Amino acid sequence: MTKRIDFQVDPSSYRHWRIDYEGDVANLYMDVDEKGGLFDGYELKLNSYDLGVDIELADVVQRMRFEHPEVKTIVMQSAKDKVFCAGANIRMLGGAAHAHKVNFCKFTNETRNTFEAAGEDSGQHYISAVRGACAGGGYELALACDYIILTDDGSSSVALPEVPLLAVLPGTGGLTRVTDKRKVRRDLADVFCSLEEGVRGKRAKQWRLVDEVVSNSKFDEVVKERAKEFAGKSTRAAADKGIELTPLDRTFQENGSVTYSTVEVDVERDKGLAKILIKGPSDAAPTSTDQLISEGASTWMLRCARELDDAILHLRLNELELGVVVFTTQGDSDAVASHEKFILENQDHWLAKEIQLYWKRVLKRVDMTSRSLVALVEPGSCYAGMLAELLFAVDRSYMAEGEFEGDNRPVAAIQLTDGNFGPYPMGNDLTRLETRFIADPSQVEDAKGRVGEALESEDADELGLVTYCFDDIDWEDEIRIFLEERSNFSPDAMTGMEANLRFAGPETMETRIFGRLTAWQNWIFQRPNAVGENGALQRYGTGVRGEYDMRRV
Amino acid sequence: MTKRIDFQVDPSSYRHWRIDYEGDVANLYMDVDEKGGLFDGYELKLNSYDLGVDIELADVVQRMRFEHPEVKTIVMQSAKDKVFCAGANIRMLGGAAHAHKVNFCKFTNETRNTFEAAGEDSGQHYISAVRGACAGGGYELALACDYIILTDDGSSSVALPEVPLLAVLPGTGGLTRVTDKRKVRRDLADVFCSLEEGVRGKRAKQWRLVDEVVSNSKFDEVVKERAKEFAGKSTRAAADKGIELTPLDRTFQENGSVTYSTVEVDVERDKGLAKILIKGPSDAAPTSTDQLISEGASTWMLRCARELDDAILHLRLNELELGVVVFTTQGDSDAVASHEKFILENQDHWLAKEIQLYWKRVLKRVDMTSRSLVALVEPGSCYAGMLAELLFAVDRSYMAEGEFEGDNRPVAAIQLTDGNFGPYPMGNDLTRLETRFIADPSQVEDAKGRVGEALESEDADELGLVTYCFDDIDWEDEIRIFLEERSNFSPDAMTGMEANLRFAGPETMETRIFGRLTAWQNWIFQRPNAVGENGALQRYGTGVRGEYDMRRV
Repeated sequence: MTKRIDFQVDPSSYRHWRIDYEGDVANLYMDVDEKGGLFDGYELKLNSYDLGVDIELADVVQRMRFEHPEVKTIVMQSAKDKVFCAGANIRMLGGAAHAHKVNFCKFTNETRNTFEAAGEDSGQHYISAVRGACAGGGYELALACDYIILTDDGSSSVALPEVPLLAVLPGTGGLTRVTDKRKVRRDLADVFCSLEEGVRGKRAKQWRLVDEVVSNSKFDEVVKERAKEFAGKSTRAAADKGIELTPLDRTFQENGSVTYSTVEVDVERDKGLAKILIKGPSDAAPTSTDQLISEGASTWMLRCARELDDAILHLRLNELELGVVVFTTQGDSDAVASHEKFILENQDHWLAKEIQLYWKRVLKRVDMTSRSLVALVEPGSCYAGMLAELLFAVDRSYMAEGEFEGDNRPVAAIQLTDGNFGPYPMGNDLTRLETRFIADPSQVEDAKGRVGEALESEDADELGLVTYCFDDIDWEDEIRIFLEERSNFSPDAMTGMEANLRFAGPETMETRIFGRLTAWQNWIFQRPNAVGENGALQRYGTGVRGEYDMRRV
Repeated sequence: MTKRIDFQVDPSSYRHWRIDYEGDVANLYMDVDEKGGLFDGYELKLNSYDLGVDIELADVVQRMRFEHPEVKTIVMQSAKDKVFCAGANIRMLGGAAHAHKVNFCKFTNETRNTFEAAGEDSGQHYISAVRGACAGGGYELALACDYIILTDDGSSSVALPEVPLLAVLPGTGGLTRVTDKRKVRRDLADVFCSLEEGVRGKRAKQWRLVDEVVSNSKFDEVVKERAKEFAGKSTRAAADKGIELTPLDRTFQENGSVTYSTVEVDVERDKGLAKILIKGPSDAAPTSTDQLISEGASTWMLRCARELDDAILHLRLNELELGVVVFTTQGDSDAVASHEKFILENQDHWLAKEIQLYWKRVLKRVDMTSRSLVALVEPGSCYAGMLAELLFAVDRSYMAEGEFEGDNRPVAAIQLTDGNFGPYPMGNDLTRLETRFIADPSQVEDAKGRVGEALESEDADELGLVTYCFDDIDWEDEIRIFLEERSNFSPDAMTGMEANLRFAGPETMETRIFGRLTAWQNWIFQRPNAVGENGALQRYGTGVRGEYDMRRV
């Protein structure tokens, strides 16, 4: 699996999804092309999926918010007979490298979370209309929807057969959504997760596995009705038509570096690190929502979010050996702050709102990235507002102190904005500053009192905004020594440590999925009982069960 | 590692700990015997520990509550020069089987949790007086205390060097207690966990790693002062003297079965399962606290808790291939209920309180046991009160319906008591019934309305107290088929599934430690970067760093 995985797709190239728009309802059909796998060696039968199918789905969800703001309900359904979706493709899982499997699961989890976020944040609700077998990842797709309708045709069922069939977990939020979202009684959940054939009809409703069971003859009618009901309840701000998410301005270099219009990814392969430079805006912020609409995908706030998102995903999946990601910024802090201010002051306009919400998702993507994350606040930096959030998302930050000889860029400073106190919460539902200062909430208030100031190193240090400050004399050596050390630590120990230190405070369904469920799944994906030569994943489809070492831990 | 690990020890046999009692303060000295390892192949240098050291420590904590109720503060300190505790023994970890490592970590976590529980529930507070190196598991011992005093002698430090040195995590609550209990700022926690040499002096206090830093000359004096202060604040009920935790009445059979006075563990090795039968009391409940004291360790409630606790630990560590544990009970439900009632009605008496608190810990131990847990409610059962909690702790329960031909025992019934609505919360701080009925709290109320009744299968089913009910005709086949299926599933998939389904609802520091941190540690303990031939654990002490596959997941 050495080909570069590209996260940029568009509807003209979709191979697996089709959408019909009917006013405020969109019908989303899953129609996976068997021959359309991302890699060789497997066929995507029975609407099973691989990362390629999910990349298209993530694109659907994203474009629905920007290109189809008129949509209030999305009905997810299958275009195939007798099967809704058979889940993740087993041959793909059996053949994939450990790191690919883990990153595949993480990306699919992030995509499922965007269904729920679309409903909660934007009033775009996903409902699933299940006809045919809905198994494993298929049921996990349905679980991520706000409402599940199952046809009662004597055979259609929902199932999580991973445990009995594959010796792995329903890890795309499956176990967590069953207990925490759908609140299925734990012993019934245990029975359900042990049943290869799943549960159908009334029992599926009684056990809270679906919201409604409808006879086959009335199915289409009821689905339409519910779609209209959800649309009627939507609080979505009015919008005529969307903007187009035009192709990214992006160039890959031979050494793996990538250049976007506002983001540069600089690969230092021998050092095991990637530097991400974010460049502040050169144009002034829009002055009206009409201007925002006419700028569309080229407006700096949106362009930068899309480019950063793409860069992070690219590094995650395609550059596994770059264990350290170093963020820097360059530009005018005031300009960044004014672009963000326009967006935050126009939250009643659908596009401004969507741009804020997208930054929330991109910053969460950063939080969840299994790389050592570092931020450098150098002279000429523009860490303001949502870019300053990066300072609180990273594992450590280093700030340049005072003037640097021969450097005529402005002295390094940080600018807090209202954006640092609410609009971009982490998965634990706290802001990054609340999480950072969980020992003493008054420090959040202290920081709030300094909104708008250019906080140089002394202030930033006193407020606790950065880890270390170094002057001209020490800066280069300290950073070099740290990066050398960091990139030589065991990547597994880093992954485990970072996953535990980043999310202090309350847990939510989201943090449980990424923390508890994902950790167990990663563990199982290492175990011979699942992935060994005679493990369940390799044996799947042969009619012979996996051979298990029966020792418990 | 095939010798049987015994969890029963007593002060006369301690090799690693020493205690001086001074009124309401106990000085607990860690003085690990280098030659006293549980297994061959390593020496316990520098106060490093293995499971044997921790079994003694758990015994200390347990006896402190029952045998020394007069104690209000325990001062944990080292009897060695220049070292407080070097943590878990690395050679032991390097040589141990995966399952042993995981169970070792779980047991040490449970023991650390009992420090905190002793303070919170019983007013017996642990404080640690740190002189010398306090590293890894050593600092985790200190973290579990309610207060940490560090001497400022220019060399004594606290450290979590697992990540840089060993490529594993400080998994005995370390990472979680740093962020969630001590609320260390996450980037400082990152720095701290990357520093082999740790942090000393004032910086340790500034970073919230310790509560107080004291010059060496004043150290002993301040420690004494703080011990007295904690004792003064204790809310502990008055007690003159304790009871003796006499040796368990216990016999091991050749086939691995174990007989206790109130518990029988029946091993069915070919089926991969162990049955635990709990026998109700034959004596009447005590009628006065004087009688309770005079019965001491032989009183049924305490005897049964100790025996069940020992049985669970024995199965966990010594019987790894018995993947399914089946609970049954036999006896008089009313008698069980009356013994429990006496305990719950005398909570202002220290011993009654301690017995209730011990059941809370034993039931948590059941929750945390990585085995498929099943309960059978057969004719003649005595699932009342805290024994009924087992029905809500297990993954599934089966109840016999009506009379069984040729069986003259009473029809199977369940008896709820006040004990099912508060005194034995799970790690998530909810009762098991609250967790079970998290979708609909009114079901908890419905169950509460039926306290004291003999709930036969129809009632139990309607109230949602059991998973399945079967009559005489189906009972045997259904149970047999289920147990066969269950014991043939992949043990890893079961471990992961059960760890995710058992703890719906809110997370606490405790559930985070067992859920998130432990899962990541288990994962790392499987990875070649830690445990492979050239991994960090094997290479430790050779002066050559582990060889790492640098791919991130």
